Amino acid sequence: MDAIQGAYEPISLPTCLSFRTSLRKVRSIKFSGGGWLGNSTRLRGGYHDIPRFSVRVKAAMPEDARISLVNGHTETGAGKSVRDLSNIGNSTNIRWHDCPVRKVDRQELLQQKGCVIWITGLSGSGKSTLACALSRSLHSRGKLTYVLDGDNVRHGLNRDLSFNPEDRAENIRRIGEVAKLFADAGLICIASLISPFRKDRAACRALLPEGDFIEVFMDVPVEVCEARDPKGLYKLARAGKIKSFTGIDDPYEPPADCEIVLQLKEQGCTSPSEMAEIVRSYLEEKGYLRT
Amino acid sequence: MDAIQGAYEPISLPTCLSFRTSLRKVRSIKFSGGGWLGNSTRLRGGYHDIPRFSVRVKAAMPEDARISLVNGHTETGAGKSVRDLSNIGNSTNIRWHDCPVRKVDRQELLQQKGCVIWITGLSGSGKSTLACALSRSLHSRGKLTYVLDGDNVRHGLNRDLSFNPEDRAENIRRIGEVAKLFADAGLICIASLISPFRKDRAACRALLPEGDFIEVFMDVPVEVCEARDPKGLYKLARAGKIKSFTGIDDPYEPPADCEIVLQLKEQGCTSPSEMAEIVRSYLEEKGYLRT
Repeated sequence: MDAIQGAYEPISLPTCLSFRTSLRKVRSIKFSGGGWLGNSTRLRGGYHDIPRFSVRVKAAMPEDARISLVNGHTETGAGKSVRDLSNIGNSTNIRWHDCPVRKVDRQELLQQKGCVIWITGLSGSGKSTLACALSRSLHSRGKLTYVLDGDNVRHGLNRDLSFNPEDRAENIRRIGEVAKLFADAGLICIASLISPFRKDRAACRALLPEGDFIEVFMDVPVEVCEARDPKGLYKLARAGKIKSFTGIDDPYEPPADCEIVLQLKEQGCTSPSEMAEIVRSYLEEKGYLRT
Repeated sequence: MDAIQGAYEPISLPTCLSFRTSLRKVRSIKFSGGGWLGNSTRLRGGYHDIPRFSVRVKAAMPEDARISLVNGHTETGAGKSVRDLSNIGNSTNIRWHDCPVRKVDRQELLQQKGCVIWITGLSGSGKSTLACALSRSLHSRGKLTYVLDGDNVRHGLNRDLSFNPEDRAENIRRIGEVAKLFADAGLICIASLISPFRKDRAACRALLPEGDFIEVFMDVPVEVCEARDPKGLYKLARAGKIKSFTGIDDPYEPPADCEIVLQLKEQGCTSPSEMAEIVRSYLEEKGYLRT
């Protein structure tokens, strides 16, 4: 039997209990001692790899409340009283604690669904401009967004990172992890960074529930980006003053199948607000702008 | 003269321009070429240490729009046309870009002010319980909170960190930086972690505008924490199975002057909801629960 730790100390009802387990690939959860569970029993993170779930409790828990997990091989905690879960041991690392406010509660408050808009593309392709226009467009509709970019991350959280390959990968990993927290907080998090490699972007995608990572590719030819050169970086790269510059002497791997591709029009360019509208419509269609 | 980088490419009006400068302790900002500035000119991060400010632009910028910064010693960018700010050099690192939605805008949307509640104390002192009760209390009043703790950070963003002293400090630094981003996003961010050293807590405090870092000390004697031992960690530490355990063989430095101290009552313990109410009242008084 797996260990379960904790002590039952409800704050107020309805409340929700959050459990962790070391049991992987949990197939089902059994409750007994009826009447204490609400009908909105939910699994956080699903049955699959994240061994965490929560139970909404709508009534005082009876003395005989019991819980067990089944993963095909093992039934854990079977017959164990939920009121008597403390100090059974911690070898297998099941813990539980009252969970605070859940993502679904925050989403209800915000009337939107948390997600990550991941804008990838070359330097000068218009990532920041899109991030800005999109956040304005959503804000004007009462939606809460937050932009993560080099500016607010490289100077803070990632100030310890250089531009060598390992640190660039770590920069992306951390931004992915922070974006995940923002999505969990219920925000529409707009991450805007070159993120040149598929592998790094895929790792960030894998952190989020399916559908919640929306990759937007700024499909702008390097010649156009170089002609724009808003920060003068291509000029420095051509002069050899910046090494390993994406698009010049370092590769950019375009997404194989991302959610949204934004291209320049043949004649004239697509305006930032037109591009923002494309992304906003996508969010609208997929239900992210309501609960 | 300090360098200024960027190119003027307004998205829509009103918009806001965000500048950065290497000039410290800026005392004043001069604008000329009138008519293009709104009346809500604001400084982000104040005049003090964070060399960043933003300007709300309500009308098309005239050809002769000019800007300069004064810090008592130097006037920078004086007479420099705002429309012609590109590629002056980057030795002194002034850049500007259209800023997306500002903190003040998000706060208006949320009807609250972003801040960090930093809960410090020994293992078993009730930090997570308070974080949970507080987030519930605020949520029930329509306020958006997010809890950062070991659970959602150690398993994600900080999964690369061990428990050696350098990594424990880095763990705290990163949580401080992420908490700062959440406060900037307008949330009431509740960070719950032992954070035993004054130096590390002070560094996190320094990241935020004055008043926005609210340190809450769970002032519970180690004997009480050890008797509770909800995770069985004190037992392991006493048995020598965990080394450098705060309160046992590693020091905890109580805050010298934090915003809130929560102690156990002589008879019986203060309930989580009573403690949460103390913190909530503080936020209410200080104006964090409105805009």
